[in-house]
Amino acid sequence: MDFELVSVGTELLLGQIVNTNARFLSRELSELGFNVFYTTVVGDNPERLKSALRIAAMRADAVITTGGLGPTADDLTKETIAEFCGLRCVMDEKSKRRIEERFQSHGLYMPKSNLKQAEMPEGCIILENNNGTAPGAIVEGKVDGKETTFIMLPGPPSEMKPMFLQGVKPYLEAKADCVIHSKSLRVFGVGESAAEEKLRNIIDRQTNPTIAPYAKTGEVELRLTAKANSVKEAKEMLRPLEQEVRNILNDYIYAVGADASMEETVVSLLKDKGMKLATAESCTGGLIAQKITRIPGASACFDCGAVTYSNAQKTKTLGVREETLRTYGAVSYQTAEEMAEGIRLASGADVGISVTGIAGPDGGTEKKPVGTVYIGIATKEKIWAYHFYLSGNRTVVRERASLYALDLVRRELLGCLEKDTNYIW
Amino acid sequence: MDFELVSVGTELLLGQIVNTNARFLSRELSELGFNVFYTTVVGDNPERLKSALRIAAMRADAVITTGGLGPTADDLTKETIAEFCGLRCVMDEKSKRRIEERFQSHGLYMPKSNLKQAEMPEGCIILENNNGTAPGAIVEGKVDGKETTFIMLPGPPSEMKPMFLQGVKPYLEAKADCVIHSKSLRVFGVGESAAEEKLRNIIDRQTNPTIAPYAKTGEVELRLTAKANSVKEAKEMLRPLEQEVRNILNDYIYAVGADASMEETVVSLLKDKGMKLATAESCTGGLIAQKITRIPGASACFDCGAVTYSNAQKTKTLGVREETLRTYGAVSYQTAEEMAEGIRLASGADVGISVTGIAGPDGGTEKKPVGTVYIGIATKEKIWAYHFYLSGNRTVVRERASLYALDLVRRELLGCLEKDTNYIW
Repeated sequence: MDFELVSVGTELLLGQIVNTNARFLSRELSELGFNVFYTTVVGDNPERLKSALRIAAMRADAVITTGGLGPTADDLTKETIAEFCGLRCVMDEKSKRRIEERFQSHGLYMPKSNLKQAEMPEGCIILENNNGTAPGAIVEGKVDGKETTFIMLPGPPSEMKPMFLQGVKPYLEAKADCVIHSKSLRVFGVGESAAEEKLRNIIDRQTNPTIAPYAKTGEVELRLTAKANSVKEAKEMLRPLEQEVRNILNDYIYAVGADASMEETVVSLLKDKGMKLATAESCTGGLIAQKITRIPGASACFDCGAVTYSNAQKTKTLGVREETLRTYGAVSYQTAEEMAEGIRLASGADVGISVTGIAGPDGGTEKKPVGTVYIGIATKEKIWAYHFYLSGNRTVVRERASLYALDLVRRELLGCLEKDTNYIW
Repeated sequence: MDFELVSVGTELLLGQIVNTNARFLSRELSELGFNVFYTTVVGDNPERLKSALRIAAMRADAVITTGGLGPTADDLTKETIAEFCGLRCVMDEKSKRRIEERFQSHGLYMPKSNLKQAEMPEGCIILENNNGTAPGAIVEGKVDGKETTFIMLPGPPSEMKPMFLQGVKPYLEAKADCVIHSKSLRVFGVGESAAEEKLRNIIDRQTNPTIAPYAKTGEVELRLTAKANSVKEAKEMLRPLEQEVRNILNDYIYAVGADASMEETVVSLLKDKGMKLATAESCTGGLIAQKITRIPGASACFDCGAVTYSNAQKTKTLGVREETLRTYGAVSYQTAEEMAEGIRLASGADVGISVTGIAGPDGGTEKKPVGTVYIGIATKEKIWAYHFYLSGNRTVVRERASLYALDLVRRELLGCLEKDTNYIW
């Protein structure tokens, strides 16, 4: 089954928004083992929409549309497809009730035009919308004698994505007559090519299951994918592969899941252990604290962060000795250590983490160029500091520094932090 | 001149990357006054590429391609278009030298296959690539007797964007036979529909220059655009319109420029006045400090930020009285005021800003639902606090709260902060 995606909406053609829907659907379909051969964007113009849908119907087995299901006269996707397939649109009572209830529950008056959204092509599979008003639909139709499946989804990503996952994915999995199941391992501290090198033997012999590395900012996602007759079977196929990967990359793997984040891992480890973290940031300027507190419920393990941008504040807030700053400079092992210990003592937290460095574009010297970063970690037992030389612009250096700091905390919590913990790029 | 964009690359169809090129080009073309009627994405497959380009050539006056100009056998955009237009590809000596020099200057060995990138359709306009190896090209050709202009750009955005701005935009401006010039005013504190309402008279009578509002997270961008015979003339046309808009929205306008940010405005005002800011954050958890320190050179006006997530830390670090916390709660006018004054005194800064609130998803009560935020501001002369009720999820509430806090600082620095400063949504 080969797919074409048709995104409908003038705002896309004006460049007002980025087509993230196409990316999401492409990735999902590719993981299900389907090909997407074309993606088309067309505006809310009846003639051009018809033409784009006709071309798509002719060259693909299935067409997924996003957008054009709304209540206005501009919204024509459903009507155009119904016409192509020679189907009438009829009021679907269940969808009608759901739309009416949605307006009532929000205490809003419903303009009559909204009911147009409940008029569905006869005989279609209706996709319920739990995050908006317009239902979606699957039509298995014929255009000029050629069989084509049309899958119509709403435009807003917050409605489209759950509708795809809940309504369309199971439908396609049934069609696929085999199951494709993926699992993502998140790796920090090993670069993409170093990871590929280490996994070379597995990658070279792969057929099913497969393993694919994807580089992200400062980390690598490893996607393990199996094709099988059932999810259970696919999972069983992935288990030995995952174990093999874990044997090679062990504690460089920090989380499972395509949407997992380093800060989630750290917050969840802290909570499990009933421990608290405190942050002392110079060049990251609050980025680590911000990441930690981004996670709901972070207050259970985080009370206190300090952003100390000047030397005076490092001394005043964190107790960094003036002599240390004079002798070694603010960007040094010694200052990082005193910052980490300082925030640990001041906050009463179990772990103190500190970052001091030169994010650029200015401030670099020959000895300490832009990208020089020291990270300190302090617990009751130890005060250690690490030196990194990070490449990239100011934003990237800050992002990477914050990831290293969080990873050092993760390793400390897992009991696998070493004084010479080795990151491989 | 109506355009179609054709993005070439299998990585787009696999969902590995988002098509930000299409968005950039759509916006640029729309600002130049051109229509984009279709965008197509196609993989690195010769037959499907040919088919997509042929369809595009038939339905558009001009086709802009991105991608497929690289050195590998997969890269076929240029060859396919040359074939369509009946043109041979010939070695362009200047492009050849540039590619060779690029490899030399990076100290790299150049694989012979790279020279394929210097073979250009005869008679084309060559677009120099200052950020990569593959040059672009403009071909004014004929496909099946129909005149079509092909503009070929490389795929990586870091190469494509400067090439468009330096090479293609002037070419199109010359075609356009008039100049389109835009200026963006950034507005905070007035919602999109409220802004439209206030500007109704101007919007209704607009022909040239025009004014268009674009909603962004927590703010509105107003784009003023004039069509004229020269940039100078266009700028002169925009001047009275901008003045008229400023008379209506005056201090809600916080910056000029599509890429301007609130934190840049605040940092630049602080620097101008030789003043320092300090932050005390609870629910924003370091987000404000992080935004301020994102700006290069922020150290001139920012020494110190505190993230005090617990009541105990609010008392210990900022001197918030236990009685205040007991009587009014951590999320209150009184706590916000004491936090702002506390960080001002502790840091020695000129302005202290504080945020305390309930970002969700948990922690809301009937009296103080999720989204309740208090912001305090303290200077030598005043200690004021503001109450906001912000909608959205945790991320959005935190983002909006940080923007309000920065805006209050901006207003204080401009001398237009009032105790009942009015934000209109």
